[in-house]
Amino acid sequence: MKPPTKTPLSESLTSLVGQSVHAIDTPALVVDLDAMKRNIGRMAEFAKKHNVRWRPHAKTHKSVALARLQMQAGAVGVCVQKTAEAEVMVADGIHNVFISNEVIAASKLARVAALAHRAAAQDGQLAIAVDSSEGVIRLAQAMNEAREHHSARAVIDVFVEIDVGHGRCGATPGPAAVALSQEIRKHPALRFAGLQAYHGKAQHLRGARQRRDTIAIVMDEVRYTRRLIEAEGMPVGLVTGAGTGTMVCEAASGVFGELQAGSFMFMDADYAANERDAAQPQFEHALFVMSQVISSHKEYAVCDAGHKSHAIDSGLPRVHALDPDSELDYFNGGDEHGILRPAGAGRRIPGIGRMLWLVPGHCDPTVNLHDFMIGVAGGLSQGVVEAIIRVDARGALT
Amino acid sequence: MKPPTKTPLSESLTSLVGQSVHAIDTPALVVDLDAMKRNIGRMAEFAKKHNVRWRPHAKTHKSVALARLQMQAGAVGVCVQKTAEAEVMVADGIHNVFISNEVIAASKLARVAALAHRAAAQDGQLAIAVDSSEGVIRLAQAMNEAREHHSARAVIDVFVEIDVGHGRCGATPGPAAVALSQEIRKHPALRFAGLQAYHGKAQHLRGARQRRDTIAIVMDEVRYTRRLIEAEGMPVGLVTGAGTGTMVCEAASGVFGELQAGSFMFMDADYAANERDAAQPQFEHALFVMSQVISSHKEYAVCDAGHKSHAIDSGLPRVHALDPDSELDYFNGGDEHGILRPAGAGRRIPGIGRMLWLVPGHCDPTVNLHDFMIGVAGGLSQGVVEAIIRVDARGALT
Repeated sequence: MKPPTKTPLSESLTSLVGQSVHAIDTPALVVDLDAMKRNIGRMAEFAKKHNVRWRPHAKTHKSVALARLQMQAGAVGVCVQKTAEAEVMVADGIHNVFISNEVIAASKLARVAALAHRAAAQDGQLAIAVDSSEGVIRLAQAMNEAREHHSARAVIDVFVEIDVGHGRCGATPGPAAVALSQEIRKHPALRFAGLQAYHGKAQHLRGARQRRDTIAIVMDEVRYTRRLIEAEGMPVGLVTGAGTGTMVCEAASGVFGELQAGSFMFMDADYAANERDAAQPQFEHALFVMSQVISSHKEYAVCDAGHKSHAIDSGLPRVHALDPDSELDYFNGGDEHGILRPAGAGRRIPGIGRMLWLVPGHCDPTVNLHDFMIGVAGGLSQGVVEAIIRVDARGALT
Repeated sequence: MKPPTKTPLSESLTSLVGQSVHAIDTPALVVDLDAMKRNIGRMAEFAKKHNVRWRPHAKTHKSVALARLQMQAGAVGVCVQKTAEAEVMVADGIHNVFISNEVIAASKLARVAALAHRAAAQDGQLAIAVDSSEGVIRLAQAMNEAREHHSARAVIDVFVEIDVGHGRCGATPGPAAVALSQEIRKHPALRFAGLQAYHGKAQHLRGARQRRDTIAIVMDEVRYTRRLIEAEGMPVGLVTGAGTGTMVCEAASGVFGELQAGSFMFMDADYAANERDAAQPQFEHALFVMSQVISSHKEYAVCDAGHKSHAIDSGLPRVHALDPDSELDYFNGGDEHGILRPAGAGRRIPGIGRMLWLVPGHCDPTVNLHDFMIGVAGGLSQGVVEAIIRVDARGALT
């Protein structure tokens, strides 16, 4: 596989480095690097304290540079959701990659098998999730075909995904998962690596107690399934899962050996709306859409960031108030505009040219709208551009 | 300005041309070229019949090749919403471009002024919208500065945008618009070109009668404002506006000289949900997200297209049924997945590997998620890939 060809960053972009934040053309995706690094540090400390591995989900940032930063802080590798994301990571030197999703098409499984060999050649390891015997058989076939073309024979780590209540992918906990584990063990190019148990919906239950109660049920399903599999003489090497919303539960469980949480690095408005669990590190907002007012009226103003700049699947962005006199609410203005109204009596309508920072509702799909993030050090309002961070796997859908 | 550097299309992509649709890796944005060309033909005929210009909005497709196809069918140029989109169009030979939005930042206005000169050098014409005297003054300043660097002195066409009920950008109809027209005429580098009146919300009023009634009020505002401006001795050269939802009203009005509708080319689920006006051409769905089932369960299946593949601001996608036995409803499965349930009793859950086509809720932001569209001729289920269409201005936000 050839590494993807990268379009050079434009001169107007690279020349931003060293300039004030006010030189940034809006709308733009801006990372508060200081806050992001503090978030990474808190996550590293948290994982160490609980003696669990962390393999943050790169679907959040889609950036090789940020994956590397996390691994320097102790992450064992990255999770990705798509084969194309894994290709971007492996091509750029991230060799421990877990595709935490089902892959079915023969053409994609051929790419997965080629990647497994490429990662192994760099002393890395590719892993993947399955939830059907058809998925296992197709994967084994692709791995066997790839082995004919490689001198060193790679083995791919395979996690059986179980549905622990989200109602999406995943085999039913219990005997169905046992059967899949047995199927995996029939194929020499596959290694049964353990279980994946992720409850997406639990991440956004607002109450800390609600999340704990839900993950307690997840634990029961995992323990039950693990016991059945191990009773058949197959050790369950690792249980992997957890997101930013519930990671305190999985980390303290003694069941999960690996945390996949990724959003902690940026913290979006949706996660910030959760009641914080006392055990949860205090993560800060580190990702912003910088925007400018382009039209101002008697009762509202209009800024230049709409939902081509930020995803709205988890709600509209919040305006990050830099001073209390200028608190604003953001209303839907369509693809290219946002409508701003004062958040309380006596607050002013912002004038034309006013800059503002929006906290996106959901960080992952917001990052996916942008080709790069502009890394700022020294705070939002007075900071300096320190780095242009490529969103290397932007649009890597297949 | 240098033309943007284009990343070469990957070999796996270019080698698709000539192959069956079934060779496409999912999820992918697929254009039914036959349907799209029929839509363009119907629009051209409609505009001709009503003796109005059409300047379709390129924010829909963001593609130079498709802009060219529209202009070959009679479009006078394109609208765009962002300076960066205009730069992509002008760099690739589309020289009649209207930035139908307000631009405020000095850095961006400098780019606008440079573009005006570049377009003029190719016998083209750049146009822009304004809604504030500050906007006019800033634009004039940028044009004056650019004129110092160019031997030929370009003039930019300036439309006064009036708010005809949408409640977003636009000056108040009446005296405020007159004052802006007068302000524009003070500056030799600006030419007062007319009025922009676009009612975005009216596009999606479901009843044909509701849309007609709403646009009747728009007409009153436009006529009133035009009369006031012309009473001051300033001819209103053109009134421009209209979207796919209301274009029958503007086309027949005798007031609007130019239609900006763009979505007609692809027709999304949201526009298809409108009650069709009898005068409206019968536009067909031409844009699809092709997806595959990757996980199948007792009561539902999971496909590989979530809202990183399609925008959901105007609702979830509809599953395009190729045969009535397999009608499915699509439910939110997050960023990377869709949940599929049979649309009625007795219909089967699709199995692993099954391909399906989704009609996006909203075409514009869906296209903006993809780097390219795969053009298919000969129908969806049995078609052949005919072209890879770049989304040249994807992510062109500034």
